[in-house]
Order: sequence, then structure tokens, then C-alpha cells
Amino acid sequence: MDKSFIRRIDNTINHLISYNHGHDIEGLHGHPDSPPSAKSLRSMLDGEFHFDRDRLRELFQTSDSFDEVFLNETIDIDTHREIILKACKEIMNLSIVSLNDMQKNPKKFVSWFESISYCDPSVALKFAVQYNLWGGTILFLGTKKHHDKYLKGIENGTKLGVFGLTELGHGSNVNGLETTATFDSNTCEFIINSPTFTSQKYWPGNIAKHGQYATIFARLIIKGQDKGIHAFVVPIRSEPDSVNPYGVILPGVHIRDIGLKASYNGIDNGGLLFKNVRIPLDNMLDKFSHVDQKGVYHSTVPANRHFGLMMSVFFIGRVCLSVNSLCMMKVGLSIAVNYASNRAQFAKTTKTKEELPIINYTTTQRRLIPSIARAYAMDFSHKYICDFVGVKPLDVLHSYSSGFKAITSWEAVNSLQMCREVMGGQGFRMCNRVAMLRDHADVVTTGEGDNTVLTQQVGKFLLGKYQIAVSQSPPSFTGELSFINSIETSPVGQQLTSISYQQWLLEKREHELLKELHSRMYGSHRGGSLVQPNTEQWFHLWNQSLPLVIKLVKANVDRLAQNFFLQKIIDSSNVLTTDKATLTALKNLCRLDSLKQIQLDLGFFVAKGFITGEHKWIQIEDEINHLCSQIVPYIQILTEAFGVPLKFNPLEKNIE
Amino acid sequence: MDKSFIRRIDNTINHLISYNHGHDIEGLHGHPDSPPSAKSLRSMLDGEFHFDRDRLRELFQTSDSFDEVFLNETIDIDTHREIILKACKEIMNLSIVSLNDMQKNPKKFVSWFESISYCDPSVALKFAVQYNLWGGTILFLGTKKHHDKYLKGIENGTKLGVFGLTELGHGSNVNGLETTATFDSNTCEFIINSPTFTSQKYWPGNIAKHGQYATIFARLIIKGQDKGIHAFVVPIRSEPDSVNPYGVILPGVHIRDIGLKASYNGIDNGGLLFKNVRIPLDNMLDKFSHVDQKGVYHSTVPANRHFGLMMSVFFIGRVCLSVNSLCMMKVGLSIAVNYASNRAQFAKTTKTKEELPIINYTTTQRRLIPSIARAYAMDFSHKYICDFVGVKPLDVLHSYSSGFKAITSWEAVNSLQMCREVMGGQGFRMCNRVAMLRDHADVVTTGEGDNTVLTQQVGKFLLGKYQIAVSQSPPSFTGELSFINSIETSPVGQQLTSISYQQWLLEKREHELLKELHSRMYGSHRGGSLVQPNTEQWFHLWNQSLPLVIKLVKANVDRLAQNFFLQKIIDSSNVLTTDKATLTALKNLCRLDSLKQIQLDLGFFVAKGFITGEHKWIQIEDEINHLCSQIVPYIQILTEAFGVPLKFNPLEKNIE
Repeated sequence: MDKSFIRRIDNTINHLISYNHGHDIEGLHGHPDSPPSAKSLRSMLDGEFHFDRDRLRELFQTSDSFDEVFLNETIDIDTHREIILKACKEIMNLSIVSLNDMQKNPKKFVSWFESISYCDPSVALKFAVQYNLWGGTILFLGTKKHHDKYLKGIENGTKLGVFGLTELGHGSNVNGLETTATFDSNTCEFIINSPTFTSQKYWPGNIAKHGQYATIFARLIIKGQDKGIHAFVVPIRSEPDSVNPYGVILPGVHIRDIGLKASYNGIDNGGLLFKNVRIPLDNMLDKFSHVDQKGVYHSTVPANRHFGLMMSVFFIGRVCLSVNSLCMMKVGLSIAVNYASNRAQFAKTTKTKEELPIINYTTTQRRLIPSIARAYAMDFSHKYICDFVGVKPLDVLHSYSSGFKAITSWEAVNSLQMCREVMGGQGFRMCNRVAMLRDHADVVTTGEGDNTVLTQQVGKFLLGKYQIAVSQSPPSFTGELSFINSIETSPVGQQLTSISYQQWLLEKREHELLKELHSRMYGSHRGGSLVQPNTEQWFHLWNQSLPLVIKLVKANVDRLAQNFFLQKIIDSSNVLTTDKATLTALKNLCRLDSLKQIQLDLGFFVAKGFITGEHKWIQIEDEINHLCSQIVPYIQILTEAFGVPLKFNPLEKNIE
Repeated sequence: MDKSFIRRIDNTINHLISYNHGHDIEGLHGHPDSPPSAKSLRSMLDGEFHFDRDRLRELFQTSDSFDEVFLNETIDIDTHREIILKACKEIMNLSIVSLNDMQKNPKKFVSWFESISYCDPSVALKFAVQYNLWGGTILFLGTKKHHDKYLKGIENGTKLGVFGLTELGHGSNVNGLETTATFDSNTCEFIINSPTFTSQKYWPGNIAKHGQYATIFARLIIKGQDKGIHAFVVPIRSEPDSVNPYGVILPGVHIRDIGLKASYNGIDNGGLLFKNVRIPLDNMLDKFSHVDQKGVYHSTVPANRHFGLMMSVFFIGRVCLSVNSLCMMKVGLSIAVNYASNRAQFAKTTKTKEELPIINYTTTQRRLIPSIARAYAMDFSHKYICDFVGVKPLDVLHSYSSGFKAITSWEAVNSLQMCREVMGGQGFRMCNRVAMLRDHADVVTTGEGDNTVLTQQVGKFLLGKYQIAVSQSPPSFTGELSFINSIETSPVGQQLTSISYQQWLLEKREHELLKELHSRMYGSHRGGSLVQPNTEQWFHLWNQSLPLVIKLVKANVDRLAQNFFLQKIIDSSNVLTTDKATLTALKNLCRLDSLKQIQLDLGFFVAKGFITGEHKWIQIEDEINHLCSQIVPYIQILTEAFGVPLKFNPLEKNIE
């Protein structure tokens, strides 16, 4: 990892690109003379692993395992599951990533994961189950003995497994799990039990059909004492043989099939119960703690941090799910832009006969172009976030991955819904993919951490940092909050499309929301008395503040996204030095993305007096229209750069 | 129809309930001592046709034709279509409505249509195809000879038919249809042709499998002269017999199957092409115009109004689709409220063990309760709109039905998406219905008039009325715009939950948006010169104004919805005179609905100075939280009043 690069980008986040630091960030407006370079944009989006992406694209085009038969005919859930497993194995055969990349080259892993999200979304989710989750537990929570035994088989698909964390009764509050792993000192084994119906492991893919193993998170009980939640490898099916290609369910294991879902029917989600299932001592994943032969518990981490540490290693899985929803959004936008550029409806006047492609209508532009801008912003952001792995502390990474996953997946659903509507009835046919993609992106809003729960974690992280900062005299804002140090009292200029002004607004908003939240939780709203977390009073105040918390996290992500976008423009300026058209396109997208986010929260900005003027409500509409009209001439270049394989871009096949 | 009633409600719309007319609309705040009456609420929502609704509910519960097998197993499209047709016939057998009710008792028809929307949504859509559209053309565009020949068979399902309006190349711009009906003077017949591939009738249900007839909208050509679009009955399949229960496709008719869709797979959507298909003279639907034996064309209406007149008779179909999406939203809310009231997650503090039902979290309340308020507002609105049929002019009815259909269906999709997210993974299982309902409500946003196109029609209607009003000296606001006459210069009070203040804000907004739009299209923005419609300049200005037009229509519907809600409260005050708890609940819902809509557009209100104070952005959050907290104790009573049959309310079966 290039440390100087990290320092530079880190400084950026901390406000190096600033309205008052003289960077020429405002230049390049309006229509360029020539179109932006499709090749340059594609190269920025494909990133350093473009070769891997192209190999995947070729596989998708040439193998009929990726033909998405479920779009054209009703197939039973069992057939769908087999198709997906076959497709996954073909991807495995390319050997583009190893499980170790999750740890050692996360950017490569995330780039690969985004690329596999072009096709039937069940494929990427199957990998999330097999690699990120089942593989991730072995890699991150296991030790050499587990790595040697499982990693190769996980990677090549011969050892399929389950991530047994959430239970029917405990989805978001995983700390409340009921499953037990009781140490039996007579046999030196753990006995796995599901004490109640609600304690069944619920949802994980690979349960209902394919999984041979499961990583089960359970309360470790030694001599009647609850040592907290730990992870264990539990075989759930026998070794595969010619008669039973996925083995048979082992004694004491009970499996249920979750059945039809609104999407992801290629994944064999299920419920899993255990009755006195015995596993050897070695099956405990013992990276942080273990039980010795005598039944003595040893741990290298404090008990109160143990569970959090176990969970934080799944950072990369969350980033993968986030780019997964981002990719679906890109695909939907590509399809919708193609449609809107070809579909003609209505003429300009009653006298002219020729109908206009619907991309000419402001309503169409307003639905598609701000989403394209957001897709670019989010793409660049996720790439920089990957660069931070191993550099920034875990809590920062957790905050980034959680905040961006929440905002990206919500935007993806929203964007795909708009793509559907832009395409009218055609958007609703399965063969045209957009409604199908919306139904898949939807799952990401509550999967791998419910968005409302994740935003609370980000909110608590930011609030905690803020509380520490303002507890000092004078207040000292460092790290993630250092942007506060350099916010000007009043903005320089008030042009709505000025990047500096937009940056000021985004920073000002995040700071004000933090102040407001802090004041509610700790301060003036209750006469300045300090509330201790984990009390009923804290619960009540926090609960009342949840809409504010979501606003704060949105503000945090919007500010970071603008910073990442600007950093990308600066980084690219060297390469694109003579390509003013591409740089102008990028800047206009950046301006549009910020302006759109500002518009969504206009009430805040105007009430606080950060935006003034009684016509601003309509001027902001006009400015967004204007930016859209500058971007629309080359809109197809912008979506072509997403690199969606032809097979998954139905308009190439001439929608009818 | 009780004319005094109509006058009264009409006056209401025109601002009788006013902050300055002394009605005691502000009273009754906060928590009532007792819960609202489930029976009273149910009776308001079920309305005068509660007996019909109960008969349908009983049928749904007792007949296994309504078991929604597609939620539990993968069924092929053909099986699904047969199940739906069978279900429709069972509903027909109850003989609750006749086709004539669309004309003579539209409120009854709409009430019935809403009730059939509880079950698999394909059922209601099949009726929209068979009754509203195929039946509607015969009823509204045909004359006695057509009524005698077809109506009975349409009603009892023995004559299934197609509504052949939209073509592959012409969805929204139906004025550009290409299909021709050429008069042949030798045989006194019309010859139906699809001259191009894009001229195929595309989308209509009943094409792919069940339809025996089609009403085909085609250009009438007499001696080479295009007389404009007219409607014709064209047989497309032979009489059914024991071998072919739906007949065989007739010569010259070509049929395509549209295939899998993201929802509504119980409907046999298709494409339909004609090659020299001959039909007798009598098959022209001749309510407004006909061709005599000598090939002479006669019409009772001016050519330029002919097409519009034909379309405006479909008013009731649009209201039906609107309440259809509203019903799906109610069902989703019932399911999600049940789930959130039972599903416990997280405890108040780390010391307490007992987890809280998630309805206690502000995030859950904020997702569900404003939607419930909107559902009540929209329900009451649609009932009053039905009362206006035959009383208000067609253009007003068209404006109401179009505006409310657009806003209701968008809200339904949004609301059902939130229900899905509130329910986490459970919301995503087909058996729990909410994701399935979202995918069906979604279709209503572009079906029966694309929402963005409909909002333009409403916008043009309002702008036209405004232009007439301000062209007079002094300006004279009448009819739909008479509310402008009594808007106070400054509001009385500024309490965010004051109904009078909310009303002032909603009226003020609509007026200001109208002024702005008018100024852009006709006035000061271009130095006061008058732009003639149907010119390129008009096109450009209008296109640039489309985001403003959508805002205007939202403002129009929000103002009307508040008025209808208040009218309902006043009408019910007599009945509920002693039931302060129910009245308080209704008032709180009304306040919440208005406040939520105001919050969504806060930037406008604050920029214009209609809402002042730098803390208003957060105070409005707090007020919404507060209203939610007052409503939440009896939230289940509010959704039980929606009367969702147990079979379609999966939580009753204990979701797991």
C-alpha cells in the first residue's frame, strides 16, 4: 500500500480540497466542445482490476449458464438454485480472487464482487454466502488448522457452507442469540442446541439445499457459565456422493426451506435447528479465544469487546453488498438510458409529426441523470474506502462501510424504481431486467445489517467522537471530525453550482446536525446534564432522535461522497490533463450530485439561513434542469462506461 | 343524488371549512382517554356499500380459488391465468355490480373494485380489463345494438374481451395510433389492418389467452381520407367449444404473448396484429359518430373533441386503479403493523432483558404512521370524488381522477417499500405479501395513464383555469380556483399542528406554484408576451417547467385531500358526537398527513417565508414524532378498520 497516497487522500477527507485553499476546483463549466472520452471514464470505473472485469464479461457473454432463464420462463426454485451453483463454479474456475484477497487485497475482491453483480443477482449473493460469510468466518475467526482444512474447498466450491449468525428471533439484535454450545468435559466436545423455536438459524443461504458445513454463532457454556457468543464449525450434511450430490442431513440437524421470495430465488435460504449435535473441540473458531482440553476458557480480548471484534471483520462483506446494489443501479440506468434514447413519444407541436425520444423530456432527465451522478460518486467513494483497509482504524472503516451501504442501497432501490417508471410497461417485463433488479437491490436495504440499524451505529460513532472533541477545552476536532476546524463562518459566494459553496453547505450541515444531536443527548436540551448511555433516559432520548440520526448519516455520507468525487477528479487531472471534455463531464456530475442532495434537504439549509432568497426553491430546480441539459448530450457515453455486458443490457437486443 | 349534499361538499372544496370561518376544526388534541372506535372507523372506510364488501370478504375466506398458490409455489403462467379467471367468475356469480353501475352508481362500483383488490391483484386487474375497459367501451362508446349483444356476456364472463387502445409504438401518445379501419364500399365492411410492427396493439390483458373480442381503436379511413381514431369491435377468436374453451384464433389475427412480468402474471397480456380482418358496419361503436351504408361519415361532435370525448369516459377506470393501489397500501400497512407490534428486537438498556416490539422505535413509527394517515386521507377523498360524477364537469373529474391516481399510486409504492423494510427479511418472503403487493402497486404508476403524463394534464387544466381567471380585470377565481379568493395575506398563528395554519400553507403553496407556472408560460419571465400553445416555444417552456408542474399537482392533491379529510370529519361529527376518542384520532391523522406533506416540501415553505424560524427544520421532525406517539397506542385499531380479510393478512397466521 502506497502510504503517501493514503496520507494524501486522508488529508482530502480532512478538507485539503477546500474553497479556501486555492485549488482550481471551480474551473470547467458548461458544454464541452467534444464529448467526454468513453475510454477514460470506463477506465476510471473499471479501475486497476479492469483485466479481471473483462475476463468476467467474456465468461458472461459466452457461457449459457448466465442466460437468466428465469426471466423468460417460470422455473422451479430447485432448478434455479442448481443453475446458480453451476454459474458460481464457472466463476470460481477463473480463479480471479482467492479468499485471502478479502484480507490482503480487498480492493481487488470488491472490484471482482461488483463485476459478478452484473448477472442474475443470485450469483453474487451465493458468493456472499460462500466466500464472504462462510469463508470469512474461517478466514477471520479461525486459525491455521481451520484454514488448512477448509479454505481451498470453500474457494473451489467443494466445501459449501452456511453463515449461521441471525436467528428467527434475532435478526438485528444478534447479541441476543439463543443457540448454545455447551462444553462436555467427559468427551471434550461441544454440544450444539437450539433451545427454542425462535433460536433457529434463519435466512442463511446454503441451508436449504447445498451447505455441508455451517459456522454457528452460539453462546459458549462451560460448567453452566455463559461465556458469550463464539463461532463453531458444525457439519450439517454428510460428504457428497454419487447418489446425494450434497450429502444427507446429519442426525440432530433439522432443516427448513424458507420458500418463495420476491427475489433471489436462486438462493437456498433456510432455517436450521440443532438437537444435541456434538462437534470436536477443534471446531471452535479460535482466533480470539479458545477452550482447552480441561475446559478452561482463554481469550486474548476483553469480554465486552469480543463480540464486536468478531463482527467487525465482516467489514468487507458489507462493502461488497454495497457495490452489489450500486452495480444493479448502474445496470438499470444503462438499460433505462438506452430505452429513453430510443423510445419516441409525442411531437414538439401538433403540426410536426416526428416524435421525440423521451430522453428529451425534463421529467426523464430528472429521473435518470442525478442517479447517474450519484452512481459515479458512490463508485469512486467505494474505491477509496477499500484503499483505507489496514490504514484507518476499524471503527472508522465500520462507519464508512455502514453509512455508504445504507445510503447506496436506498438510492439503488429508488433509482431502479425510477428506471422502471421511465420505461413504462417495458420496465415491468422480466426480460428487460429493471423491475427484477429493483426487487434484488431492495434486499440490500435490510440485509447485511438493516439500514436503520447501521445508521444508528454510524450516528453513535460520530456522536462519540464529537463528545470527546467538545469535552476538551478548547474543543479539538481530529480524525473524522477535523473537517469542522476549517469551516468558514460564512460561505464564499452563493452560486448554487459552485463546488466550494456546495462543500461549505455539506460540511455546515453535518456539523450542525452533530451539534443538534449532541445537544439532545448530552446537553442544553436537558439543562446540560450528562446522560449515561445504557440507561432508560438515554434510550428515550436516542429513540426520539432517530430521524435526526438518519439525517446526520445522510449528511456524513454526502459530504464524504463529494470529497471522494473531488479527489478522483484531482487524481485524474494528471491523466486527463488535455481531456477537458471528460473533466468537465466529471465536474458537472459532481456538481449535480451535490446539488441534488442539497435540494433533498432544502428545508434545513433555508431554515438555517445557509441558503437565502425567496426564489431559491425554484432556482435550484432550474439549476438542476440546467446541469441535466448539459449532461444529457453525452448521457449514453456515461452509462456505456458502466461496462454492462451486452447480455445484461436488453436494449441492445432492441426492446419490444 | 342529493344535490344539497353536493352543494355542501362543493362549497367545502371551495373553502367553507376555513381558518377564518369559525368552524371548530382545531379542537380535540392529544391522547384521548379511550381508544377510537374500531367499529366507527370501519364503518367510515367500508362506506355505504359495507354489505357488498362483507359478501366479498366471506367469499375470499371460504373459496380456495383465492388461496394465492403463487405465493407458496412456483406456478406456470398458464395455471396462474386459469386460477384468476376462475376467481373472477366466482366474484361475478355474486352479481354485486352490473356494468351499468360504472355509469349510474360509480361509487358502488369503485367500492366493489377496492374490495376485490384485497386478494391476488391479478383478480382486480382482470376485472379492469373485462369490465372497465372492454365493458366500458361497449357501454360508453356503443349504442343499444352493442349493449344488447355484449353487455350480459361481459358481465357474466361468457364474452371475454380486449381493450385495444395502446400500441407498441404508442403508449402515452395514443393520438398517434397507426392501426387502420378502412371502409370498403363494395361490401359495406371495415377492413382492420396493422400497417407496421409498431402498430400492434400491445399490453392489453385477455389478448394472449382468454379474449374472444377486442375493441380496437383505429384510424377510420373512408375513400383514402383519415377521419381520426374510432372504436370497433373485432372478433379475435372463434366461439368457445368443448375442445377449445377460449376458441381458436381467427384468420388474419396474429397474437403474441408478452411473457413473464415482475407482477400480474395472472393476466394474459399480449400483442395483437391484424391483416385484412373484415368486420361488418355494425361493429363500429357509434355513440358519437357512424358511417352509413353509402360510406358517408356522420358525427355529433366536432372532430377536434372526438378523441378526447372517447377517452374521458374512462374516468371511472382511473378511479378504480387508484383505489386499487390504495387498497394494496392498506393491506401492506395492516401486515406491517401486525408484524411491528409483535416482532421484538433490542431491549431498552443493556441491563434489561426484555426486548421491545419494534413499533416502539421512532423509525418504525415514522415509516408506518404517516402512511396510515395518508391512506385515510386518500380513502375519504376517493369517496367524495365518486360523489361528484354527473355533478361536476368532465374536465374537473378528469383532473381529480388523474391527480389523485398519480399521487396515490406513487404513495402506495413508497409505503409498501417501507412496509417491506420494516419487516426485514420477512417482508421479502412471498407468503407475507408486502413485496408482492409493492410490485403490483408499482404498475399503477404507469398504467391507465403514466403518472408523469397525467400530472401534465392536471397542470394544463389548472393553468388554463388560472389564465382565464387572471385575464379578467379584476381577476376572478371561480370553480376549482375559488379557494384563492379567501386566502389570508398572513396566517393566523403558526402552530405547525394547527389545521388552519396547515390549510393556509397548502392553499398558499398551490396558489404560488400556479402563479409561478403561469408567469413562466405566459408572463413576466418572457417580458409579458403571450405564448400560443402548440408552438415550439410553448413546448420548450413547458418542458422546462415539468418539475414545477409535478410540484403543482402534488400541491393541488394535498390541498384537496386535506379538504376532503376535514369534510369527512365534519360529516362524521354528527354521528360521532359523543365519541371524542374517534374524532380525536381522525383529527390527529389529518394533522399528521398535512404536516408530513408540508415537511416533504419544507424548502419551498421556508424560502417563501410561509414558515419561519431557524429551528423549524427540527421542530417539524419533533411534531411529527409527537403526533406519531399520540397515534401509536391505537395503531392496530386504525389498520383493523381497513378490514383486510384474514386470509390476506398473513400476520394473523403468525409470521415466522
